[in-house]
Amino acid sequence: MSQKSVSDDHVVYEFTPDMDAERTVPPGTTLEIHTRDSVEGDVQTEEDLMRAVPDEVNAATGPVAVKGATPGDILQVTIEDIRLREEYGRVLVMPEFGLQHGYEDTDAPRTRITEIDNECLHFNELEIELDPMIGTIGVAPQNTAYSTLVPHDHGGNLDTTDISAGSTVYFPVFQPGGLLAMGDSKAAMADGEVCGTGAEIATEIDVTVDLISDPVVALDRPLIETEDAWKTVASAETMEEACELANRDLCRLLEHVHGFDFTDAYMFSSLVADLEVSQVVDPHITIRNAIPKEQLANPFTG
Amino acid sequence: MSQKSVSDDHVVYEFTPDMDAERTVPPGTTLEIHTRDSVEGDVQTEEDLMRAVPDEVNAATGPVAVKGATPGDILQVTIEDIRLREEYGRVLVMPEFGLQHGYEDTDAPRTRITEIDNECLHFNELEIELDPMIGTIGVAPQNTAYSTLVPHDHGGNLDTTDISAGSTVYFPVFQPGGLLAMGDSKAAMADGEVCGTGAEIATEIDVTVDLISDPVVALDRPLIETEDAWKTVASAETMEEACELANRDLCRLLEHVHGFDFTDAYMFSSLVADLEVSQVVDPHITIRNAIPKEQLANPFTG
Repeated sequence: MSQKSVSDDHVVYEFTPDMDAERTVPPGTTLEIHTRDSVEGDVQTEEDLMRAVPDEVNAATGPVAVKGATPGDILQVTIEDIRLREEYGRVLVMPEFGLQHGYEDTDAPRTRITEIDNECLHFNELEIELDPMIGTIGVAPQNTAYSTLVPHDHGGNLDTTDISAGSTVYFPVFQPGGLLAMGDSKAAMADGEVCGTGAEIATEIDVTVDLISDPVVALDRPLIETEDAWKTVASAETMEEACELANRDLCRLLEHVHGFDFTDAYMFSSLVADLEVSQVVDPHITIRNAIPKEQLANPFTG
Repeated sequence: MSQKSVSDDHVVYEFTPDMDAERTVPPGTTLEIHTRDSVEGDVQTEEDLMRAVPDEVNAATGPVAVKGATPGDILQVTIEDIRLREEYGRVLVMPEFGLQHGYEDTDAPRTRITEIDNECLHFNELEIELDPMIGTIGVAPQNTAYSTLVPHDHGGNLDTTDISAGSTVYFPVFQPGGLLAMGDSKAAMADGEVCGTGAEIATEIDVTVDLISDPVVALDRPLIETEDAWKTVASAETMEEACELANRDLCRLLEHVHGFDFTDAYMFSSLVADLEVSQVVDPHITIRNAIPKEQLANPFTG
């Protein structure tokens, strides 16, 4: 392991305002972060069943402090690559978890092992293209501690398909150093994460951490930059509330970049900015509001 | 107007179990359906403000009965083309309607007129590509009458961007003849319809109506076929409930086509089927669950 590798011996199960840095790196550093699978090797065959969400789940490797990061700054995390460290993922249904829990035809617990072969996951007789993503990623929160099962303004268990190689995630810095941690990768998952998991798997993630000091526009919650879109990300108790926050954050960016007032930004977003579902199964729901880059220039440099 | 044209003199403001057919056509008929804009010409300039949703809104042209359609059949509606009949759309914010209604920075009522030029809508200084869609489309419901503001199992005010040229929408037949009506087109809209409208506009819609008699798999709610995906569509009081129904409908199709039991269908959907937002502003919320065609063959012919 090189100096720039972060071992998965160093994990947290809570994002807390006062968590201790595993290390401190200067802005511009590229790290290789090793992550455990979300249930930490407890499920290796289809006979290994999860009867409940474990108390300690979604181990997040880190946290890593970024030198000079100060509350009000923005931590810029570019995901360079996600490599799978296992030959299979696991898909889990647990009795009191997931969109169809309690439905009469849902048979829980159940485990499906999805073997990897030829760049595909195998689910029964069917093939699914690999599309690795990070489930849990976040920074030290402002006031409250959140378990790694919970998404909120600091990130956390966002379970968002766009948090994948090639994307950049921008987090508000709430605490000195920012304090970035991540884990809970999936070999593939669809928007919604309806059964409560994707294909859970251990990974090595290459990320570059950088800093936007004194940003021209502030962030209250995470923002994702994909190849062709900007996506605000909001988590709240209900889907409706998460939609409101994600759209409000997007309108603030439109106000800043285009000089709109809030209401014109709101009307414009109704024509060009898609509401998207990240996940509907965690203790808070996560929603994105996505706008094509041709309709919104980089808000931090514009 | 040719024999196959349906004039927008013939509209309904309610989908009722016993509505009267404007005409009856054999399966395989292509019709040109003229639709009014959703507020029926009441908004022509930015000085024309809507202070509330009108009692009669989203006039739906028709209904057209399809000869031989019997409860339990499926009405297959292929959207061949949507042509705009006006030189501009209108985007509306109303005081008690829309995702951000009641938010302190929302200034309602407001109207933006979006002029059309060079295949684009103009919103203030910005250009938006035209992407016409049908907001309200449905059939006679089973038991209850629904105003054209409300989406439910019969369709109605689905406000779904995928209901556009090139798509086919499959509706359950609840009443003899099916009784198809449509209106409330938009020149462009994003998933969510956050401000409560898209760019509302009068259109001419070419549709081909066909019939699947005694289908091998039943539908409880609408299903959309796009170029590359199948999308179940469900409307309910909360987003969470709409997600549950849309996913359950998709799992039924997966059971039928792949021979999965419900729980395997559910786990598979968690890996490959995206939850998508249609609209979050109408009296019921509308959600889609979308699966790529490579993961689900045509459920009616398979």
